[in-house]
Amino acid sequence: MSSFPTAIYNYIDTHQRDYVDRLTQAVAIPSVSADTTPAGRQQVIDMSNFMLQQLKALKVNAQQVDLGPQSGTTVNLPPLVIGTLGTDPKKKTVLIYGHFDVQPAQKSDGWSTDPFTLTKVPDGKGGIKMVGRGSTDDKGPILGWVNCIEAYQQSGVDIPVNLKFLFEGMEEQSSDGLNDYIRQEANGYFKGVNYVTICDNYWLNNTTPVLTYGLRGIAMYRIDVNGAPMNLHSGIYGGMIFEPMSDLIAILASLVNNQAQILIPSVNNLVPEPTAQEIKLYEAIDYSVQDLNEATQADVGLSSDKVTLLMGRMRFPTLTIHEITNGSPPSDPNVSASTVIPHAVSAKFSMRLVPDQSPDVITGLLREFIACEFKKLNTKNTYNFVPLGETARPWVASFDGPSYRAADDATYAVYGIRPNYDREGGSIGVAITLADAFGNDNVLLLPMGRGDDNPHAPNEKLDESNYFNGVKVMATYLWNLAKETSGTSTATTTAYPK
Amino acid sequence: MSSFPTAIYNYIDTHQRDYVDRLTQAVAIPSVSADTTPAGRQQVIDMSNFMLQQLKALKVNAQQVDLGPQSGTTVNLPPLVIGTLGTDPKKKTVLIYGHFDVQPAQKSDGWSTDPFTLTKVPDGKGGIKMVGRGSTDDKGPILGWVNCIEAYQQSGVDIPVNLKFLFEGMEEQSSDGLNDYIRQEANGYFKGVNYVTICDNYWLNNTTPVLTYGLRGIAMYRIDVNGAPMNLHSGIYGGMIFEPMSDLIAILASLVNNQAQILIPSVNNLVPEPTAQEIKLYEAIDYSVQDLNEATQADVGLSSDKVTLLMGRMRFPTLTIHEITNGSPPSDPNVSASTVIPHAVSAKFSMRLVPDQSPDVITGLLREFIACEFKKLNTKNTYNFVPLGETARPWVASFDGPSYRAADDATYAVYGIRPNYDREGGSIGVAITLADAFGNDNVLLLPMGRGDDNPHAPNEKLDESNYFNGVKVMATYLWNLAKETSGTSTATTTAYPK
Repeated sequence: MSSFPTAIYNYIDTHQRDYVDRLTQAVAIPSVSADTTPAGRQQVIDMSNFMLQQLKALKVNAQQVDLGPQSGTTVNLPPLVIGTLGTDPKKKTVLIYGHFDVQPAQKSDGWSTDPFTLTKVPDGKGGIKMVGRGSTDDKGPILGWVNCIEAYQQSGVDIPVNLKFLFEGMEEQSSDGLNDYIRQEANGYFKGVNYVTICDNYWLNNTTPVLTYGLRGIAMYRIDVNGAPMNLHSGIYGGMIFEPMSDLIAILASLVNNQAQILIPSVNNLVPEPTAQEIKLYEAIDYSVQDLNEATQADVGLSSDKVTLLMGRMRFPTLTIHEITNGSPPSDPNVSASTVIPHAVSAKFSMRLVPDQSPDVITGLLREFIACEFKKLNTKNTYNFVPLGETARPWVASFDGPSYRAADDATYAVYGIRPNYDREGGSIGVAITLADAFGNDNVLLLPMGRGDDNPHAPNEKLDESNYFNGVKVMATYLWNLAKETSGTSTATTTAYPK
Repeated sequence: MSSFPTAIYNYIDTHQRDYVDRLTQAVAIPSVSADTTPAGRQQVIDMSNFMLQQLKALKVNAQQVDLGPQSGTTVNLPPLVIGTLGTDPKKKTVLIYGHFDVQPAQKSDGWSTDPFTLTKVPDGKGGIKMVGRGSTDDKGPILGWVNCIEAYQQSGVDIPVNLKFLFEGMEEQSSDGLNDYIRQEANGYFKGVNYVTICDNYWLNNTTPVLTYGLRGIAMYRIDVNGAPMNLHSGIYGGMIFEPMSDLIAILASLVNNQAQILIPSVNNLVPEPTAQEIKLYEAIDYSVQDLNEATQADVGLSSDKVTLLMGRMRFPTLTIHEITNGSPPSDPNVSASTVIPHAVSAKFSMRLVPDQSPDVITGLLREFIACEFKKLNTKNTYNFVPLGETARPWVASFDGPSYRAADDATYAVYGIRPNYDREGGSIGVAITLADAFGNDNVLLLPMGRGDDNPHAPNEKLDESNYFNGVKVMATYLWNLAKETSGTSTATTTAYPK
């Protein structure tokens, strides 16, 4: 197989305007999956139709898949878009995953421009930011693949791998319906997939490309503490009864301290200490306290040591208390919030999990620990420990396989530097399902956007340079992957990370 | 002076129906002081007018006092009703305080009957409960005084004391405007007042009358902990930053434990240990864990020892955490509550204070303690400590003066048992102002209702027997007080408490 056909780069360089137009059209469809009104859901369906047409225009054998009603509702889920391009048994097959739904956005949330009008804004450093909801999460990346395929085809270059596409419209809503579908079709529609490439995350900072080989898992919980059946006056009963809030605070304080250290030995014992070699991985990552402070617009980092910060995000579990609520609304007209002992209080918290912490095991350990701590409180109030909603296991791949080598070389070819290798602190449930279905180490997260892209927040953006270079990385990655898997690796080194 | 004229009791016994009619009329006026709409405020004004007419019908020299606009609003405060009956320089002067406004109430809050229709309900033990908003808090008691004066007059008995009346319509709203008025008129309209009798609290249980000689003070506070200027994703930033919620929980856990013990030495040091003699006071009170459990409809008492419970309520300070809130609403469309590290959190708490804990001193000590504890946390987040709203100093009177002796004997005369002497766990700011103005030990709280009257809650009630007997106690109290102060005490013993 010859070296990468530079005609493709030329095509990409001369069709930037088309790519921006394509993204502009997509951003203009406010495909907010959180909106379950008929009109709102129709927007996501419109976006599904848009993606279907994009793939069909590339001669992809594309179709939509009805996933039935959304969990707990009678509203239909937006249809998946799946597709097949190439079935050559001599080629490897790559599954491309992404999503076409977006987070809600209103100008009044703090947007400088209309969120659903892709707007070019100078970045002050000679570049252009394309601002709009979905620009980086995840319409830019999935259209990057469309642009990539188009560039191959229009350049007259045979695509060196078979492709499968899986684009969903419910990623921002826990990928409702998708995991079952993947498990069901792993040996059906997706039979023969060798590699999975996910384009749904970001560089760690704004300058160094990243390949992502791990994700933290997640599990959410609620603890309720219940006392009397009604709120009681703090003047009359304060000093006579156990107050549920004080019990709850004691329990929460037993779970995590203010240094973000989890205090549950059985939970911590599941996490091996990092090896010296592993620590080197984090030392190699281009990141600094300054990056954290810029991203948070504050100086609230737990450490001034880069490696400690990065391992805190990627390599160790965390426990975050999201909210504490009173069982009865403070607006209850008969009980002034100002003088009440709330009779029932709840805390919601989640844990981000790392190997070998599976949500099921963690739930059992938490249940046991909280029971023990509650007993120590010697209170007459009672508690409930309630696991909440969907969970995701942590995922970590070894990153010395063909897909990572191909992406590493592609990054080097386009950006002139080797990528950092990182793990994400967040959780992408579908990644675990894909890893289960197609092999743990065959999944790669190949981010397009930068660390300051503001996904989920006002003024979400994708830099033009990331968009255009991202298409080149995708094209080169496919080329390299075909070479890698044909046994003619040209990677300059395999001593990753570089 | 002769013994108590039994004609008055006869009059009271034969006019119960009139008394119920009078209370029915008053309850029918929904004088909800929390309602600041013009229509709502007019109801409180109507009730002020009603009380004015009641006093005028008794030939009281009564008038209304305009207190100007309500704090922070342009709405006018409901007018006070003040009055004078008798100016005989040879008689002592008693100031009667009560209020004619009520807490909000809607049938849907859980009332069995319309809250503003006084409804007779059998109590299952042969008695009748009069159910309605304001029945016990505080329309029953203030109309008790009206009934009492009427009984004297209609029985042709000269009232043995001069009376001043002070009825307000904003008690449920921190007595807005009243404290300044009292301070201003203590040597004006109220010049010469010797004793103050407040009818605005309740027996401790349902069987034993009570005289109340103390109140806990109150001070409210807020602690805010602030991190980054926006909520951050728990996956990306969990493990990298100090989480404000964890800081707040640590601070709250340093203030009070789940055994309701305040953990602030400087605050606790202000409270003397109870003497053996004092403990006997609590041993003498008719109360049990069973009373607590019935009142709370639960078994959540801090102790099985009656004295410990009572001192916890009356004699020791407490610290109650009322609510913990996130700075940004969880409904913010751009940040799912489920995955957010809240960037700003707040806790509201209050302290109930006892001698010698004045709110001002406590605020300083708390400020100092929290600063010290926050420093120990070694966090980069910041905090604010914010004293909130009105405060009240604690008040404790010696209860061996004429007013207490008169009330003790009156209780014995009517109920055949000596009253318990208690301190209230709650706070009545105006009581402190009255104590300051007219002498600490000249203030008496003379409750009419029972411990299960549900003031502020649905199905507020006043037992008919408490209403009718309460009028007799009031009448006898005035008679006894005149005797006490003329130096011819007939109290069977002065070794209080009995």
